[in-house]
Amino acid sequence: MPQLRIAAAQVNTRVGDLAGNADLIVEWTRKAAESGAHLVVFPEMALTGYPVEDLSIRESFTQASQRTIRELAERLADAGCGEVAAWVGYLDADEVGPRNAAAVLYRGEVVATQFKHHLPNYGVFDERRYYKPGTSLDIVRLHGVEIGMVICEDIWQDGGPVAALGQAGVDLIVSPNASPYERNKDDQRLPLVARRSKEAGAPLVYVNLIGGQDELVFDGDSLVVTPEGALLTRAPQFVEHLMVIDMDFPATAGRTEGTIGEFEVRRVALSDEPVPAYRPAPAPPVAEPLPEEAEVWFALVTGLRDYVHKNGFRSITLGLSGGIDSAVVAAIAADALGGGSVYGVSLPSNYSSDHSKDDAAELARRLGANYQVQPIADMVDVFVKQLGLTGLAEENVQARCRGVTLMGLSNQFGHLVLATGNKTELAVGYSTIYGDAVGGFAPIKDVPKTLVWQLARWRNAEAEKRGEIPPIPENSISKPPSAELRPGQLDTDSLPPYELLDDILDDYVEGDRGYDDLLAQGFPGEVIDRVLRMVDMAEYKRRQYPPGTKITLKAFGRDRRLPITNAWREG
Amino acid sequence: MPQLRIAAAQVNTRVGDLAGNADLIVEWTRKAAESGAHLVVFPEMALTGYPVEDLSIRESFTQASQRTIRELAERLADAGCGEVAAWVGYLDADEVGPRNAAAVLYRGEVVATQFKHHLPNYGVFDERRYYKPGTSLDIVRLHGVEIGMVICEDIWQDGGPVAALGQAGVDLIVSPNASPYERNKDDQRLPLVARRSKEAGAPLVYVNLIGGQDELVFDGDSLVVTPEGALLTRAPQFVEHLMVIDMDFPATAGRTEGTIGEFEVRRVALSDEPVPAYRPAPAPPVAEPLPEEAEVWFALVTGLRDYVHKNGFRSITLGLSGGIDSAVVAAIAADALGGGSVYGVSLPSNYSSDHSKDDAAELARRLGANYQVQPIADMVDVFVKQLGLTGLAEENVQARCRGVTLMGLSNQFGHLVLATGNKTELAVGYSTIYGDAVGGFAPIKDVPKTLVWQLARWRNAEAEKRGEIPPIPENSISKPPSAELRPGQLDTDSLPPYELLDDILDDYVEGDRGYDDLLAQGFPGEVIDRVLRMVDMAEYKRRQYPPGTKITLKAFGRDRRLPITNAWREG
Repeated sequence: MPQLRIAAAQVNTRVGDLAGNADLIVEWTRKAAESGAHLVVFPEMALTGYPVEDLSIRESFTQASQRTIRELAERLADAGCGEVAAWVGYLDADEVGPRNAAAVLYRGEVVATQFKHHLPNYGVFDERRYYKPGTSLDIVRLHGVEIGMVICEDIWQDGGPVAALGQAGVDLIVSPNASPYERNKDDQRLPLVARRSKEAGAPLVYVNLIGGQDELVFDGDSLVVTPEGALLTRAPQFVEHLMVIDMDFPATAGRTEGTIGEFEVRRVALSDEPVPAYRPAPAPPVAEPLPEEAEVWFALVTGLRDYVHKNGFRSITLGLSGGIDSAVVAAIAADALGGGSVYGVSLPSNYSSDHSKDDAAELARRLGANYQVQPIADMVDVFVKQLGLTGLAEENVQARCRGVTLMGLSNQFGHLVLATGNKTELAVGYSTIYGDAVGGFAPIKDVPKTLVWQLARWRNAEAEKRGEIPPIPENSISKPPSAELRPGQLDTDSLPPYELLDDILDDYVEGDRGYDDLLAQGFPGEVIDRVLRMVDMAEYKRRQYPPGTKITLKAFGRDRRLPITNAWREG
Repeated sequence: MPQLRIAAAQVNTRVGDLAGNADLIVEWTRKAAESGAHLVVFPEMALTGYPVEDLSIRESFTQASQRTIRELAERLADAGCGEVAAWVGYLDADEVGPRNAAAVLYRGEVVATQFKHHLPNYGVFDERRYYKPGTSLDIVRLHGVEIGMVICEDIWQDGGPVAALGQAGVDLIVSPNASPYERNKDDQRLPLVARRSKEAGAPLVYVNLIGGQDELVFDGDSLVVTPEGALLTRAPQFVEHLMVIDMDFPATAGRTEGTIGEFEVRRVALSDEPVPAYRPAPAPPVAEPLPEEAEVWFALVTGLRDYVHKNGFRSITLGLSGGIDSAVVAAIAADALGGGSVYGVSLPSNYSSDHSKDDAAELARRLGANYQVQPIADMVDVFVKQLGLTGLAEENVQARCRGVTLMGLSNQFGHLVLATGNKTELAVGYSTIYGDAVGGFAPIKDVPKTLVWQLARWRNAEAEKRGEIPPIPENSISKPPSAELRPGQLDTDSLPPYELLDDILDDYVEGDRGYDDLLAQGFPGEVIDRVLRMVDMAEYKRRQYPPGTKITLKAFGRDRRLPITNAWREG
């Protein structure tokens, strides 16, 4: 029975960095070769990074991608990896238009090429803006094993390219993916891949990238499944990983080529000779998906770390208010970059409580972060007096003097400023534009307030399990949240209780439900009215908010596109 | 020979305002009825406004649109307009998905419905994110005249629905559109509509909306063309207008129905009886398209006015530096809202020249704008001393103290803040985020610096022609541009000359050309390198910039989607 040792390279690519990604592909193909693999599969558009957005329609970039994939084939051969067939995603283009493509590189040449068929154009995806769908399927014969390929969205469709491959006859399907992390999404991947494998009657190797790219974070979670639904191996989330597995292949029933449905099936024979029989390595491990909070935490840490590093920063700064949001952002930053790269600034006003300042200092101490105090009273004073500001205008000036201070320190010392707002705040506009909203990145932008608390408790508990000091002062978690912009102010003065608020927001923002639906859920009409109105009126603020890591089904940003000028009111 | 009096309602709709737009449609149908018209055509998605973006996928909104179109048919009949057949664009949905639709309303009922076939998914358009394409074509017989319909993008395609209508046999085609203004685009419309009319062998009535919606402005420019290419009438740009024209129709050759190519042609007979012969009114006027600068100016005025009014503001505030950008923005605002609604603030620092302050005051005087002086020295001083800021950090604090001041006045008095940056500045990042970049709207965001000067000269010349005082002080136009953030600073210290810079930016940003292409254009390699790097590095600033009216082929915003984290460098 033909055997193959299969490698899947779950790597962290960089958007636009053709040279760097090519180096990465050479390095990991070498690792695959060293592990004795006969083939290695990289993620979707591994050569260009994903998503490259409008770079897809810039001719100079497309041409560079096409040139680099050919050079890469030669480089792999020169590096002594020519016998390892490498499936590499890249950007192609022909007379029809740009293509989301993958090539098979073997013995110094591009021996097969295939274009993605199903182009996602929902949520954060704009692929029909860029790409034309492909209808050819290249089945490569390697050591007598027939290997078909489908790219990402192509495995989300019943009766699509996978079914065609099954009809044509394949022994194995490999699938390069760029599938962003979403809470609870991993529950879908395994049954989906299993269903597709069954549809094709062949095992399926699913390879996903890891790492952060602007609003998106990719979690890896690569896996191999048999048509019977057995999970053979699964890679850990959020880390680069070479997954290697030995597989036996019974003889293929048929080997059709030509037209099958809307697809043109082509056979590419690389080698008929089976690999000499070898003793398979023990079955590789099956990584358990991370528990809920851990998964979110690593997503946020990865998203922030990659934004910082891939944009050439080494350190971050943020305002530490003593509250839960800035504490959690600081803890994420310390986990991502090390406490020494975190520059916390306490920015007390006349309304700041003593416990706020103490909690901020204590947080910095626990994280090993740099810490300074910059009172804003003198700055605020000049604005308020000169301009005669009162009420909300006076509250906002406090937040804005903090913003100017953080940006000044950023300009002077080169730290990236982090905005500390959470999704709930952003939804209802409970933040000051150009105030607490300043920053290059907003790590918890897509984290509802109730989940912020949950993450804080989880992170502290993890530390305790490991015998470490919990990073977040208990007081920051337990005290009632306050913006401290006027004496005795509490969030609940302006907002419904967070449990209720997050429930409504989940249905309205993520679920896109209307007024009647929300009423039917049992929420009080008056609260629905108030919350929905706040959400609708805050669109202009969200439009100017920094990017942050998407972790939910629908994040603010590319994922949810609503007009600012919008007279529609639910209810 | 059958006759018809045809009305086209070039109206200004409001996104999401189903009730308000329905009122508008009743009002203009009544006008059409009063003018003796037998039919009236409204723009694309007139009932919902355009574009409604993700409201398209919210079920409550879709259902409300479907309900309102039925109610509207009844309201029109109740208003005594039941005999006027009205073509009205709206949002529909069926089991396949949401649809960009238009209905024919007649005698209290929806008598025909058609879905858009070609869905634009490039530039600012995301229609494949929302809509499923329609393949049916409803041809309505009104007083014996066979009237086909195509929606917007459907007339941009050779051999598409228009060709099918031509094959089926129609006497007239009406086309509801939502086609955003772009510099020089109107040159394309007339030949395109003429080509399509010829393809169908029937005259074509092209109806476009007017008005601003976030980044977009629609210019109207509705027109009627014969298959022989004769332009029968053309509506003026940027104003609401009822275009009425009498037409004779020779007998139709064929009246096929059923399948034609990919289309299902349906015939809907409303009335066979020709209208009693009447004496046609004299041929309506053919409006000349506006000259280049006038067209851009009206686009900017319309875009700003509608953003302000449709979002419930009555006044704007902005910093007046004495420079050309703020002068032009103030003049646009005065034209849009009246000088009395403009609140100019001079924000001098220690580096501000006397002529800057004088020019700002003179501008306000000429515009009849409100004016105050708020020196920023005291504010800047506190930040610089307390934080120990130097160099660029010190320069930026000046811009940010201006931003905080304007936002404070906005919060206190309810004015909308305008950002005064131009496209050139935004492209190369020559602005301070949270400083001069603050604002709810940025009127000249898509205007290159060289065009800013050109518009200023044009606006002054127009005033002189009318015997009015030119709004913009000559000194603001003629002096060398400076940010005045340090002594003796000039823009040309940091940037190439604006003529050269705008030429390169036009090729790089709008033309999406790569390094080699630019070199082949004859630009110096060193300047290309520098400019492209500045553009690439400023993406993060643009992402947080306020929206502004698109006037070029490719505006920053929805039109140009590039990653912030992007390692690709041309060259």
